[in-house]
Amino acid sequence: MKYSVGVDLGATKINFILVKNKKIIRQEKVFTPKNRKEVIKTLENNIKKIIGNISKSEILGIGIGVAGPLNRRGDLILNPPNLRVLRNCPLAKIIEGNMGIKTVMENDVHCFTLAEALLGAGKNAESVLGITLGSGIGGGLIINPKHGIYRGAFGAAGEIGHMVIKFDGFLCSCGSRGCFEEYASEKFLKRKSKLSPLELEKRAKKGDKKSKMIYQEFGKNLGIGLANLINVFDSEIVVIGGSIAKAGSLILEPAIKEIQKRVLSPHSKKFVKIRLSKLGGSAGALGAALLLESYD
Amino acid sequence: MKYSVGVDLGATKINFILVKNKKIIRQEKVFTPKNRKEVIKTLENNIKKIIGNISKSEILGIGIGVAGPLNRRGDLILNPPNLRVLRNCPLAKIIEGNMGIKTVMENDVHCFTLAEALLGAGKNAESVLGITLGSGIGGGLIINPKHGIYRGAFGAAGEIGHMVIKFDGFLCSCGSRGCFEEYASEKFLKRKSKLSPLELEKRAKKGDKKSKMIYQEFGKNLGIGLANLINVFDSEIVVIGGSIAKAGSLILEPAIKEIQKRVLSPHSKKFVKIRLSKLGGSAGALGAALLLESYD
Repeated sequence: MKYSVGVDLGATKINFILVKNKKIIRQEKVFTPKNRKEVIKTLENNIKKIIGNISKSEILGIGIGVAGPLNRRGDLILNPPNLRVLRNCPLAKIIEGNMGIKTVMENDVHCFTLAEALLGAGKNAESVLGITLGSGIGGGLIINPKHGIYRGAFGAAGEIGHMVIKFDGFLCSCGSRGCFEEYASEKFLKRKSKLSPLELEKRAKKGDKKSKMIYQEFGKNLGIGLANLINVFDSEIVVIGGSIAKAGSLILEPAIKEIQKRVLSPHSKKFVKIRLSKLGGSAGALGAALLLESYD
Repeated sequence: MKYSVGVDLGATKINFILVKNKKIIRQEKVFTPKNRKEVIKTLENNIKKIIGNISKSEILGIGIGVAGPLNRRGDLILNPPNLRVLRNCPLAKIIEGNMGIKTVMENDVHCFTLAEALLGAGKNAESVLGITLGSGIGGGLIINPKHGIYRGAFGAAGEIGHMVIKFDGFLCSCGSRGCFEEYASEKFLKRKSKLSPLELEKRAKKGDKKSKMIYQEFGKNLGIGLANLINVFDSEIVVIGGSIAKAGSLILEPAIKEIQKRVLSPHSKKFVKIRLSKLGGSAGALGAALLLESYD
């Protein structure tokens, strides 16, 4: 069994892991630099560091999860609204060329969903909708775990954060009004509370009424978006991750209530499972490492 | 090559066709009766009529397209908002039992999408999103034509008419507020114009300004919903059918403009094809007949 490197390249942090036999052996976390050259240098240095003295012949490859959309072949980052520094960057090819190790990449939330479907909360499910709640909202769909991620015709499936739920609503960074991520990501919490999401969560968990109300409304909005996705996709399970998922029942309870009100099919309503991520903060990097297995 | 019977069972009309070698040989249309017993009698009488003196051994089976949602196995109609007379009805089993001919059924818009994907506007596409605009909005998704319709985990995928696009908007017959079908189906046209859709279309095509404006707004709303679905599914082609599709460019032009504004991936935006149905009013019945082929 060879080693794989998994990288979760986010707008603020990069998570590096070394994986063997689907288990995390080593881990490194760093902040994301602000320009492209530095990002690439940071990736290479930390990948070298995490590989250590393991010989290249023992490394299956490097998988990178990165904000989408990517292109159809998955070898070009197009125009991620929250990671502008890597627009139109063929990142995997650059890393592979510089390091001499096979490198693949995929939308970060697709990686999250793949990991949760194969090893986490979505294990043994027939179809999984993965959703991450952070600075924005991302999505991934697995229709059959054996076939991996559903990428869509042009590689851009799962951009659920830009599904409009209030067409005359708030203006989103993508240029549209009323996107889901304006109502159920950090953007919403910041707009409503003027606090950092961490501080808000602390206050709500201490019982502060106003903070709890904000999560209540957030959860309701989340439920509206999830009900839409269940009506459209009818997946067996929805797995919720990302930094805001830590708020747990604060958001889950109102979301489930809304889903129960809004899903059309009585069978989907009854049987669909709504679960929090099991793999936590490493799901994205783990899924990126798992990408290698289907490319082997 | 055997014959198949295709039935498109709508809220107001039922379309019966006899198919051989993917071609329509005979056709019958009748109005939909108002009670269940009469619906079943009408189905049986007209199926007999269309089969004529062809022997049962020459009939592959009967396929029925009907308003969803159905259950997971596709043998029970659950709670269609626009066809209440058939709630919780195991229709295919009843027809099969009474007539002694193998009978299968499927969501009517899934049938429409299957026919357009195999024989119509979506031919040769890798993935097809079918949408019908009529008294409501229905949807069907084909991810790979060889695998047929994507039914979802509980048989209810494609309920796109109940995707919310304005969560504080108009109340829908399903009980939710702001459903897509409140903004881009007959419901919208009637609410805005107080005219029949046929009369409105006539006026708009004659150049009546107010009527054209209503279609303009309808098209914009349609584009919002379609952009959502493209952001989520990223299908290669969208095929638009149903009675309102006849309005053609009146709705298509503003819809495409809105899609171009709202789809996130520049590649999806550039390459996705938006087309009107090629098979017209018989697509649903034809798709229902085609269901038999995958059951053979």
